[in-house]
Amino acid sequence: MAGNSFGNIFKLSSFGESHGKALGGVIDGCPAGIELDLEIVNKELNRRRPGQSEIVTQRKEDDSVEFLSGIFEGKTTGTPIGFIIVNKDQKSKDYSHIQNSYRPSHADFVYDKKYGFRDYRGGGRSSARETVVRVVAGSIAKMLLKDVKINAFVSSVGEIRYEYENTEINFDNIENSLVRCPDNKKSDQMVELIKSVKKNGDTVGGVISCIISGVPIGLGEPVFDKLHAELGKAMLSINAVKGFEFGSGFKGSTMRGSDHNDSFNADGTTKTNRSGGIQGGISNGMDIYFNVAFKPVSTIMRDQDSIDSDGNEVKVKGKGRHDPCVVPRAVPIVEAMSALVLADYLLLNRVSKI
Amino acid sequence: MAGNSFGNIFKLSSFGESHGKALGGVIDGCPAGIELDLEIVNKELNRRRPGQSEIVTQRKEDDSVEFLSGIFEGKTTGTPIGFIIVNKDQKSKDYSHIQNSYRPSHADFVYDKKYGFRDYRGGGRSSARETVVRVVAGSIAKMLLKDVKINAFVSSVGEIRYEYENTEINFDNIENSLVRCPDNKKSDQMVELIKSVKKNGDTVGGVISCIISGVPIGLGEPVFDKLHAELGKAMLSINAVKGFEFGSGFKGSTMRGSDHNDSFNADGTTKTNRSGGIQGGISNGMDIYFNVAFKPVSTIMRDQDSIDSDGNEVKVKGKGRHDPCVVPRAVPIVEAMSALVLADYLLLNRVSKI
Amino acid sequence: MAGNSFGNIFKLSSFGESHGKALGGVIDGCPAGIELDLEIVNKELNRRRPGQSEIVTQRKEDDSVEFLSGIFEGKTTGTPIGFIIVNKDQKSKDYSHIQNSYRPSHADFVYDKKYGFRDYRGGGRSSARETVVRVVAGSIAKMLLKDVKINAFVSSVGEIRYEYENTEINFDNIENSLVRCPDNKKSDQMVELIKSVKKNGDTVGGVISCIISGVPIGLGEPVFDKLHAELGKAMLSINAVKGFEFGSGFKGSTMRGSDHNDSFNADGTTKTNRSGGIQGGISNGMDIYFNVAFKPVSTIMRDQDSIDSDGNEVKVKGKGRHDPCVVPRAVPIVEAMSALVLADYLLLNRVSKI
Amino acid sequence: MAGNSFGNIFKLSSFGESHGKALGGVIDGCPAGIELDLEIVNKELNRRRPGQSEIVTQRKEDDSVEFLSGIFEGKTTGTPIGFIIVNKDQKSKDYSHIQNSYRPSHADFVYDKKYGFRDYRGGGRSSARETVVRVVAGSIAKMLLKDVKINAFVSSVGEIRYEYENTEINFDNIENSLVRCPDNKKSDQMVELIKSVKKNGDTVGGVISCIISGVPIGLGEPVFDKLHAELGKAMLSINAVKGFEFGSGFKGSTMRGSDHNDSFNADGTTKTNRSGGIQGGISNGMDIYFNVAFKPVSTIMRDQDSIDSDGNEVKVKGKGRHDPCVVPRAVPIVEAMSALVLADYLLLNRVSKI
Repeated sequence: MAGNSFGNIFKLSSFGESHGKALGGVIDGCPAGIELDLEIVNKELNRRRPGQSEIVTQRKEDDSVEFLSGIFEGKTTGTPIGFIIVNKDQKSKDYSHIQNSYRPSHADFVYDKKYGFRDYRGGGRSSARETVVRVVAGSIAKMLLKDVKINAFVSSVGEIRYEYENTEINFDNIENSLVRCPDNKKSDQMVELIKSVKKNGDTVGGVISCIISGVPIGLGEPVFDKLHAELGKAMLSINAVKGFEFGSGFKGSTMRGSDHNDSFNADGTTKTNRSGGIQGGISNGMDIYFNVAFKPVSTIMRDQDSIDSDGNEVKVKGKGRHDPCVVPRAVPIVEAMSALVLADYLLLNRVSKI
Repeated sequence: MAGNSFGNIFKLSSFGESHGKALGGVIDGCPAGIELDLEIVNKELNRRRPGQSEIVTQRKEDDSVEFLSGIFEGKTTGTPIGFIIVNKDQKSKDYSHIQNSYRPSHADFVYDKKYGFRDYRGGGRSSARETVVRVVAGSIAKMLLKDVKINAFVSSVGEIRYEYENTEINFDNIENSLVRCPDNKKSDQMVELIKSVKKNGDTVGGVISCIISGVPIGLGEPVFDKLHAELGKAMLSINAVKGFEFGSGFKGSTMRGSDHNDSFNADGTTKTNRSGGIQGGISNGMDIYFNVAFKPVSTIMRDQDSIDSDGNEVKVKGKGRHDPCVVPRAVPIVEAMSALVLADYLLLNRVSKI
Repeated sequence: MAGNSFGNIFKLSSFGESHGKALGGVIDGCPAGIELDLEIVNKELNRRRPGQSEIVTQRKEDDSVEFLSGIFEGKTTGTPIGFIIVNKDQKSKDYSHIQNSYRPSHADFVYDKKYGFRDYRGGGRSSARETVVRVVAGSIAKMLLKDVKINAFVSSVGEIRYEYENTEINFDNIENSLVRCPDNKKSDQMVELIKSVKKNGDTVGGVISCIISGVPIGLGEPVFDKLHAELGKAMLSINAVKGFEFGSGFKGSTMRGSDHNDSFNADGTTKTNRSGGIQGGISNGMDIYFNVAFKPVSTIMRDQDSIDSDGNEVKVKGKGRHDPCVVPRAVPIVEAMSALVLADYLLLNRVSKI
Repeated sequence: MAGNSFGNIFKLSSFGESHGKALGGVIDGCPAGIELDLEIVNKELNRRRPGQSEIVTQRKEDDSVEFLSGIFEGKTTGTPIGFIIVNKDQKSKDYSHIQNSYRPSHADFVYDKKYGFRDYRGGGRSSARETVVRVVAGSIAKMLLKDVKINAFVSSVGEIRYEYENTEINFDNIENSLVRCPDNKKSDQMVELIKSVKKNGDTVGGVISCIISGVPIGLGEPVFDKLHAELGKAMLSINAVKGFEFGSGFKGSTMRGSDHNDSFNADGTTKTNRSGGIQGGISNGMDIYFNVAFKPVSTIMRDQDSIDSDGNEVKVKGKGRHDPCVVPRAVPIVEAMSALVLADYLLLNRVSKI
């Protein structure tokens, strides 16, 4: 209801402000008996971690997660998995300048209006730091989804676009790229662009693509809870996201039905996959793929026109250590949200027939 | 859970197959005291109705709604509003040819796999006929949202694209266009395209844009239930939708932060509106706007390769009366789903502070 | 949220007023593939039907249900099951005398305060007529629960109490008794009491007991959604219910642990069953049993002190045809609500482990 | 879904095992702007704390709560309130004797069957230690409900019963009594009984009564979510509870309507209050009152017949430090669950009319 929970059966409830004592989450509805590899959780956190390379924010957040419940002798027990990530390197004073001012295209203004006041330290609850909780939960979801492979990568930064066929991508290359683009040449260009944008005190947007294979047939609920609708909501809930398309996407809207339809092979697979692995909201066993558009980060190191809480015009300028481009660090977040949706829908599908 | 309900407080539960006895819905959580104008409900249904023009399906469905509860002396009572739309003109025999065959890019195959069998008459539950229920509920939601103006229109059909500034659109023109595009010239081109596509037994996709004004500041819940995430899910749940973008959308991913950020005016409005009326998932009082991409209708009047339920290769060809392009009739559906989201979030916002 | 839905996975949404056009419901989340025997639905409705005997209300409501969706070729399809019961014999004019007056111990006063006005015809939504919807849904739930036997019966009317051991009851006798008490002698006494109370224009309360066998081990969710907590809520949601106890119940509060504990047999059954088939909120395979207390019906054929909506003191007296005692007709309602809980928890238990 | 969350709008998600690292909770949906007095939280925790007197368990759990989020400058921010209670004095080795054995009338057996294995240390998730989380959340709920007075007390222990009229109780006396019975004489008798039971290695049950005043008119949702149904579920979800009755309760089932009905006064109050402050599931402004029956604690210091996980017959005997009677420490838990229900329904009622 109040927006801090995600999922129906496999359900994450998230809490925590960027500059509070800790962030954390509770996963309720995780089935008993999953063998957990906590190293994988840490590995995923490191992919999201600030300071991991020269093109991301240099904030230091060591982001170590502490599990508090729901795990016994290395396995999930079926009871809620509580966990926290203690905040250590918060520099709250970096934010005193915005205590009464509203940063353009941030949530400061609307939080003040909605709640009557706000925790102004670093964006409080609206900070992308919250996504650390999603990555922890998503890594648990991945362990439930063991035959499913979720691969997200950066397909564009600003105007630089990696054009590809789904089948030709070398997923192993993703983590070798600072920007998480599997094409070496495009990766270099993207890195250069981010560096130059950063030098100018500016930021730039990008697109993350995701390809998911090994999804069983039958995931997705009809009508309102179609699989792609829930995936879309999951992606749109990530900070800075402005758009979502799956399968043929916006380009599909320009096509003819005779070109767009996916004919069947005798084994139930399809000859093409413009459907993006989902038909009528239900997975058909083909690869699921989609794109997620991210706007440029709102915090820039330049003077901007704004107002304070009394309506006076003021200048606001970013301070502290911020990302010039969010997409490299958002790759594991896209994967985590995908995993949360699929884990939940896998369980939902267990009750669809007798 | 099983996918046939939408909303948290203002909640629609939908039921019915395209060729069953009736479709219907229950709205629970509609506040008491709303004065209902049932003429408006019928007007909205007529906008979605088959047979309304030469460019849509010629099926006859008179789609009259019967309200069964929750209304007394012209006002909502606060108890659930039940309603049905009786099916009258179903030609189930049009579908006997697909009883054991799977239409390409339809939900036939996945329903069979998910549920073990399916109601094969006209797509059953996966038919877009289900959206009639959404239009009824959305029109009630609109009556709760009286100061909010929701205007959807067709902005592209196939490769024909209406380029516009949000502020220059003449919304009054929409209903004068067969295709619901407010630009006369583009409208004519779109109509021609649809006619020629139809003549070829083919179909074509398109884009619906929506602009919403008068939204109070503060609607939207943080983190997972951001206003645009719920709008996105709502749109992606409509049959044939492949993509959703709001504000600057996919184009925003190519921009710099210094160009993208919306500076404030002294009154709290913003000088630009690339945010699309939503910041941090919460409405800021500016216009909300978004685009919804629809694929071409899957039923085409041509032979296609497919299989039957025993895995034999067969040819499938559309029969009956189908839309060559779905977007003209989908305009009121986009508005209805927008209204359902906004009504729900308006009520949710009542409990955000003491 | 607004109180008209019940269940998590197997979910009933109910609508309709006692004197509106129809009552009805939507069952979402019923698994596909259940073979339905609609005769059983009618049989259950007849057990709840007014006019079935001389000790219940003589209103005529033929209560025939019409299924509108979710069933194909005799089986559930996995899509929502919509159904309606058209109101035929409403005598709305019987209620004009209470349009502005509040019947003591009815919901008239609180509905007016909560919603601003009310549908005053026959109690509107607060009427026990709503339970017809529960009986329909419960009978579908019973078909999912085929190995589970749910037997409710009347164990007391007023001060007349049938004392029994769970194991000695002849369930086949229940439907032979006008009052649905399996003991012939007590049944006769109860019938006599109800007749004499009715003659005095008065009403009387009673207790329904329920014994459920064949429940699989493992149903029930820990902490807040314990099986008995959900059963308790289900029973307390039935009109006129004032109390719920299971297993040893209130009497158990007077006992010592050494007397109360259920020792195990080697096969995992227990030697006694004071737990009532539920330990820690989870079914242990033993019989589940509980008691439900019903107050006397509030509508009596005598003058009572009341007020009108302007605060003037008035006399109110029942008109029309009402039950002198609700428990005989409430037996199938108790069973229906039990079935709804168990069907839902059976499905929930499918996702408790990998 | 999985049973560890409670509430619709004001929603508590709980986690933690009795012998894990910590217990904790997340309150989502608490409105912004509530001034918090954290002293009150600690005071409530002390009322539930082990070791508080000679008649309760002598375990030492200092039960200090740490709030991690959702509070800023002494007020709730509208974002989720996360908190933990670190476990300090767990003696897990006290439980090695039950690793493979099932304690009679405990949840050991059913957890093993439901989840495939269990955290056997001290009952794990099924331990009443979980209720510490409820007390924290309930104390926040009380701060939202400032005009509502919730007073629970012990009305019976074993066969010793405090008979009273609601209006004659001196609530100030409750905390002066070791057993939390406001009548000095009965309190002494109850304390004596508990001491003698404890000396015998046995345990005893009891009843907690609760009287709530100052509840606004209109709380409660019709049909399934009646206020008393939710209160009943809340109480039945507390460990060891076997029954719930409100207003006239089970005794009401023996009465005549003419005696039971509550006639109105001119001001809308009622002359009697057998309804228990709730009519048709909605509060009418009169005092809400109810009784909650607790069974004797299952852990007794005597040999009992049981089995191990291989089905071998074994003897089980309690070890460690346990309560001889649970009701004195359960009083604040009953109040906490009452507060959670009322806070949630207070917020729900904000959306019942325009």
